Amino acid sequence: MNIETNPVETVIAALREFLGERLSTNASIREQHAKGEDANPPVLPDAVAFVEKTEEVSRVLRLCNTHGVPVVPFGAGTSLEGHVVPVRKGISLDLSRMNAILEVNAEDMDCLVEPGVSRHQLNDYLRDQGLFFPVDPGAHCSLGGMVATRASGTNAVRYGTMKEATLGLEVVLADGRVIQTGGRTRKAANGYDLTRLFVGSEGTLGVVTKIRLRLHGIPEATSAAVCQFDSLAAAVETTIMVMQAGIPVARIELADADQMRASIAYSKLDFQPQPTLFLEFHGSPAGVKEQAEAVEAIAADMGGKGFAWAHDAEARNKLWKARHDAWWAANALYPGCRGITTDVCVPISKLAEAIVGAKEDAVAMGQNTCIVGHVGDGNFHCVILFPEGDPKGLERAWELDRKIVARGLALGGTCSGEHGVGLGKREFLAQEHGQDVLDVMLSLKATLDPKGILNPGKMFPGN
Amino acid sequence: MNIETNPVETVIAALREFLGERLSTNASIREQHAKGEDANPPVLPDAVAFVEKTEEVSRVLRLCNTHGVPVVPFGAGTSLEGHVVPVRKGISLDLSRMNAILEVNAEDMDCLVEPGVSRHQLNDYLRDQGLFFPVDPGAHCSLGGMVATRASGTNAVRYGTMKEATLGLEVVLADGRVIQTGGRTRKAANGYDLTRLFVGSEGTLGVVTKIRLRLHGIPEATSAAVCQFDSLAAAVETTIMVMQAGIPVARIELADADQMRASIAYSKLDFQPQPTLFLEFHGSPAGVKEQAEAVEAIAADMGGKGFAWAHDAEARNKLWKARHDAWWAANALYPGCRGITTDVCVPISKLAEAIVGAKEDAVAMGQNTCIVGHVGDGNFHCVILFPEGDPKGLERAWELDRKIVARGLALGGTCSGEHGVGLGKREFLAQEHGQDVLDVMLSLKATLDPKGILNPGKMFPGN
Repeated sequence: MNIETNPVETVIAALREFLGERLSTNASIREQHAKGEDANPPVLPDAVAFVEKTEEVSRVLRLCNTHGVPVVPFGAGTSLEGHVVPVRKGISLDLSRMNAILEVNAEDMDCLVEPGVSRHQLNDYLRDQGLFFPVDPGAHCSLGGMVATRASGTNAVRYGTMKEATLGLEVVLADGRVIQTGGRTRKAANGYDLTRLFVGSEGTLGVVTKIRLRLHGIPEATSAAVCQFDSLAAAVETTIMVMQAGIPVARIELADADQMRASIAYSKLDFQPQPTLFLEFHGSPAGVKEQAEAVEAIAADMGGKGFAWAHDAEARNKLWKARHDAWWAANALYPGCRGITTDVCVPISKLAEAIVGAKEDAVAMGQNTCIVGHVGDGNFHCVILFPEGDPKGLERAWELDRKIVARGLALGGTCSGEHGVGLGKREFLAQEHGQDVLDVMLSLKATLDPKGILNPGKMFPGN
Repeated sequence: MNIETNPVETVIAALREFLGERLSTNASIREQHAKGEDANPPVLPDAVAFVEKTEEVSRVLRLCNTHGVPVVPFGAGTSLEGHVVPVRKGISLDLSRMNAILEVNAEDMDCLVEPGVSRHQLNDYLRDQGLFFPVDPGAHCSLGGMVATRASGTNAVRYGTMKEATLGLEVVLADGRVIQTGGRTRKAANGYDLTRLFVGSEGTLGVVTKIRLRLHGIPEATSAAVCQFDSLAAAVETTIMVMQAGIPVARIELADADQMRASIAYSKLDFQPQPTLFLEFHGSPAGVKEQAEAVEAIAADMGGKGFAWAHDAEARNKLWKARHDAWWAANALYPGCRGITTDVCVPISKLAEAIVGAKEDAVAMGQNTCIVGHVGDGNFHCVILFPEGDPKGLERAWELDRKIVARGLALGGTCSGEHGVGLGKREFLAQEHGQDVLDVMLSLKATLDPKGILNPGKMFPGN
């Protein structure tokens, strides 16, 4: 047997030479790297490479590029769109051990971290310095994964997404070259914005090995509140009015009655199973009070029932923990069921139509759903529940997903506000962007990854 | 004579067919398109094409691409870095007649404009709806030019730059294809961020024909103030402390004593020729008061002499008009002299060192300079004055420019915060980014503009 006819074996042998035990073909390790938190069928990688530094990433990519072997970056494995599934097999590149916080420049409010650092880890580290990193998806995700998917979450309405938060990157290209993009300044007009090209590229253009992030001062005052409504429309309309009034809420999150039912059960919340807004205000004590009063007045006009305040940190943490556990709560609502989730984002003026329409579609199909939303950004997730392991149930769930996305696109929205395209949203991309845009994206992909080794099968239809 | 041996003549003849009088080879028209506001030697284009719609831009590019004729987009001609100089001649593509405001969606706070719309025109149009567009360079520039250079200006410290302000674009590619990037949502994770790739690409990757911009509500309360200091260092240190305290100033602008001397003369200002901060606060009446008091306390600690308040719109407008005229004021300070300008941006903690060092270098060289700065972003301009038409004077000015940039880069900064690379900053790019990064940028350029017809000779050294 000519070993060159089996490029994967060649690569594995070469990787083992410099990674030793950190190159694993163990079955259970491969199983752990076969899927994320989504419902896509798992695929085992041929091997898992646990890298610890940039030079190793560079060597792995150079080798895989030479031999045409796929590389799928893996962080915390919390993707909801199949990003980490090695659909063409090859090497799962586990970056979780690259989890050092390399620099914190408190006076410039920036930091430099490795991609395996989690947002929890970073915020625990920063707290003593009066700083925080605001981008806050629900999951226990890695910052590398958040860069890859252009993640956002509850605080984005005030502080922006990973697009705004990322000042610069170290990226290993497909051929092993290591480049530094961006820099430490708040702004620059110094050539093409490579940082933004890699943010949201889902591991298809390069592997991120260092991330420079913009930080924020912990606000002097923080206050959270919960307001419940009789109808989904009233909760959404309240959000629209708050945003249009320009009130700088730090968080404004929606849960529909079904999601509340799930979260009350899962997180032991003391609320009614009704459409609910979760709010947070940041600023000076006077500023927070002013914002809260303005929102309370709007909510009252829309029939919102009282504000339940969570002034102290413990009560707030319980509230946001419940919000962050919404995905798991929804998945636990019906025994034997699990969910897929939509990620539609629309212009704020279309939000009521998009959300109420999604719920109506679900009801018409007799499909159980829970809706949560980063509604200040026009983004919501409809978790569609189906009997686990039932292919017909999954197909029906996808059918509802397609309806909800189609309405979102018709309203000037996007199929993905924050989860990324991955496997799950590929089919919508041509419809959303048009073929010429896809062609441009594919030409960039071909330029930076001519052999197509980087996370193949993702993002593009038919890729 | 074989007409195919003269591609420019071929293109001009073909353009005239569908543009008629709007294709001009008139000498004075060509002279008007030979330079911006910078000191680079003018170069006459072979012809100027005044386009009025996207389809015309597409036809121009398709023709020029077929025949390998350079195309240099031209908006308001206010570039400070030679962007509009047709150094390889060819067609100057004048987009100033594409100046329609196509949509304003007040409820979503976005708008769609053509590239020839100026920021003044847009803000005049928006005022009645309680909205404004914050990005605010001094010049009477076009929004297309602002996209091209990733412009920012005085409000960027609070509202961000064109990077944050641009939601989406219509772009004509070198081969005439028309693509739509981005969208109307506040966020998206739906493929590569093509919008950010074109923002700041300086006309080298495509020609922008429509721009979707994010708008903001006119703040309930606005207040401006001026504070003067005995030393440049004290003014800069005050800025640093304001930023580190997280006070959300809308504007914090520096003028050094020489710039104040120039502006007092040019704009009839009633201040002393001393280092000065110009400030503006946006928010609720209480919020503005709170911010202003906090800044006033910091300034007083640093020896700042009293706050001169400009509460009413007329006084504020006079102040900001003077700030916007700083470039012209500096150029008028010494009869027979004109200026070139640096555009260094550094991390805020390094700002005092960068600015004070720049002034010391200037003094040591006996070079007249005026310094202004968007100091909240760590960005400052040192206007270096030299006798107009004196090549040795210009060479000495460039020498000082190089010193100031070198210090900025050594402090972790960039050669350009907002003016772009153009002709003037090309030489710094390899030093700032490294050759691998330049190679990646050049590979993207080659992918989207394989024949190199789009604004050739700009951005890249030796390009």
